[in-house]
Amino acid sequence: MADRVLVTLDGEVRDADAPLLHADDFGVLRGDGVFETLLVRGGRARAVELHLARLVSSASAADLPAPELDDWRLAIDLAVEQWGDTREGVLRLVYTRGREFGDAPTAFLLVTPVAERVNVARRDGVSVVSLERGFSVDLAQKAPWQLLGAKTLSYATNMAALRHAESVGADDVIYTSSEGHVLEGPRSTVVIARGRALLTTPPEQGILPGTTQQALFDAARGHDFTVRYEALRPADLIVADGVWLLSSVALAVRVHTLDGHSLATDALDGEIEKLVDKAIDTAR
Amino acid sequence: MADRVLVTLDGEVRDADAPLLHADDFGVLRGDGVFETLLVRGGRARAVELHLARLVSSASAADLPAPELDDWRLAIDLAVEQWGDTREGVLRLVYTRGREFGDAPTAFLLVTPVAERVNVARRDGVSVVSLERGFSVDLAQKAPWQLLGAKTLSYATNMAALRHAESVGADDVIYTSSEGHVLEGPRSTVVIARGRALLTTPPEQGILPGTTQQALFDAARGHDFTVRYEALRPADLIVADGVWLLSSVALAVRVHTLDGHSLATDALDGEIEKLVDKAIDTAR
Repeated sequence: MADRVLVTLDGEVRDADAPLLHADDFGVLRGDGVFETLLVRGGRARAVELHLARLVSSASAADLPAPELDDWRLAIDLAVEQWGDTREGVLRLVYTRGREFGDAPTAFLLVTPVAERVNVARRDGVSVVSLERGFSVDLAQKAPWQLLGAKTLSYATNMAALRHAESVGADDVIYTSSEGHVLEGPRSTVVIARGRALLTTPPEQGILPGTTQQALFDAARGHDFTVRYEALRPADLIVADGVWLLSSVALAVRVHTLDGHSLATDALDGEIEKLVDKAIDTAR
Repeated sequence: MADRVLVTLDGEVRDADAPLLHADDFGVLRGDGVFETLLVRGGRARAVELHLARLVSSASAADLPAPELDDWRLAIDLAVEQWGDTREGVLRLVYTRGREFGDAPTAFLLVTPVAERVNVARRDGVSVVSLERGFSVDLAQKAPWQLLGAKTLSYATNMAALRHAESVGADDVIYTSSEGHVLEGPRSTVVIARGRALLTTPPEQGILPGTTQQALFDAARGHDFTVRYEALRPADLIVADGVWLLSSVALAVRVHTLDGHSLATDALDGEIEKLVDKAIDTAR
């Protein structure tokens, strides 16, 4: 079993231990490109169409050529077949502006093992620190060049925020806006429960639309939940019946502590986690 | 004469048309790394020590291992020697977090030709549009995870801002803060003249400290200029005796138009350009 599977969009399986990108690829020099991360489980990539739709939207925001979705679908099938069905994997779709003075984007798919951190978070939940992102919730509309709704390769600040969390003994981060609204995690969407209502931040407030959150909301309506998009403040999380970070690979991770406050974890015991688990198996 | 020169930090000259980076390099997957861009002219890289000092500072902000400066100096000499002394070049120093599950950063140097756009800007000056960046000038101090003073590989929003400028018929961008203060260009520092006083935005306001601006300020003191760091507003640029975008490769580029307003270009005719030209030849 390979530790990594690497496939280029032209349908070639590559040696993941051989270099692939040129030194002048703008994906490297400027983080200029977009990506998606999917869970591979049971020999299938999950929520493929939700992720491809977001790839299209991110590429459009970044003025990249529209992705050829049939090529991506075929390459996803090939990558997953190479990975096999005996263990979970993390499938990244990467699409960069290509080489300086070049004439084509760079596009590849990479499957790697799920990090141990993810299994621990799924099992034990996480402690979270809220960090200011510095933006107003209005910025996404006013300043499209800030690419707030696009999943670009420029993730350096997200990584710095996660390192900061670790340095203060927390597992993860929830960003707040300059007004003090809850935004998102560096790699997740925030969902809270109030009774049987599920709430999340409106994507127009400058966050990435969450594929796992969308899959949950679609599924939850059929399970006696109401769902809605609503501006949230940290205090709403403190008094919620449950807070989760939703992401494609970790799925629904319970937040047990926010800025040192213990959050409710008794209500809906395991119900959201199970619902997400099922939702991403049936999602487009 | 090679179109590109590629050297790795271990002192190897590589084929720039052969792939160098692995698909799982965090420089690619997350724009997680730092860089510098230097002008090569007359067979010498310019302002090397100013750039290396900023590389160290950026690496520290991003929690990367401290760069081995003697290795970088030797590799710079090698890259420049390979490039030759008959034309200008753009030398990039790139330092990424390295491969996923790897144990070492990735470090390389790339020399490429100066873009035609740069020669046009040097000759004709540029029209600029001001764009809101969405941050307060206070953010850098409050939120170090936003890496505002570090030159990271996560430049996707800078590229988007420049494409936005092009779409409205402008050549370049000056960012403003959420309070409406002048910050910097996506790849330059803003300097204005008031008589024989040169002013620029204080680096603590969340901008990258400019190496070319530092070289200019050091040199200008000996040429009957006063220099200072001061909060600026767009109106200060409109009434200034001159506005320039300073950067390592284009050097001092005159801004002739800001948001449709013609700026003064008669005063100090060519003096700042010549001073910068000389300053980067003598800078550390």
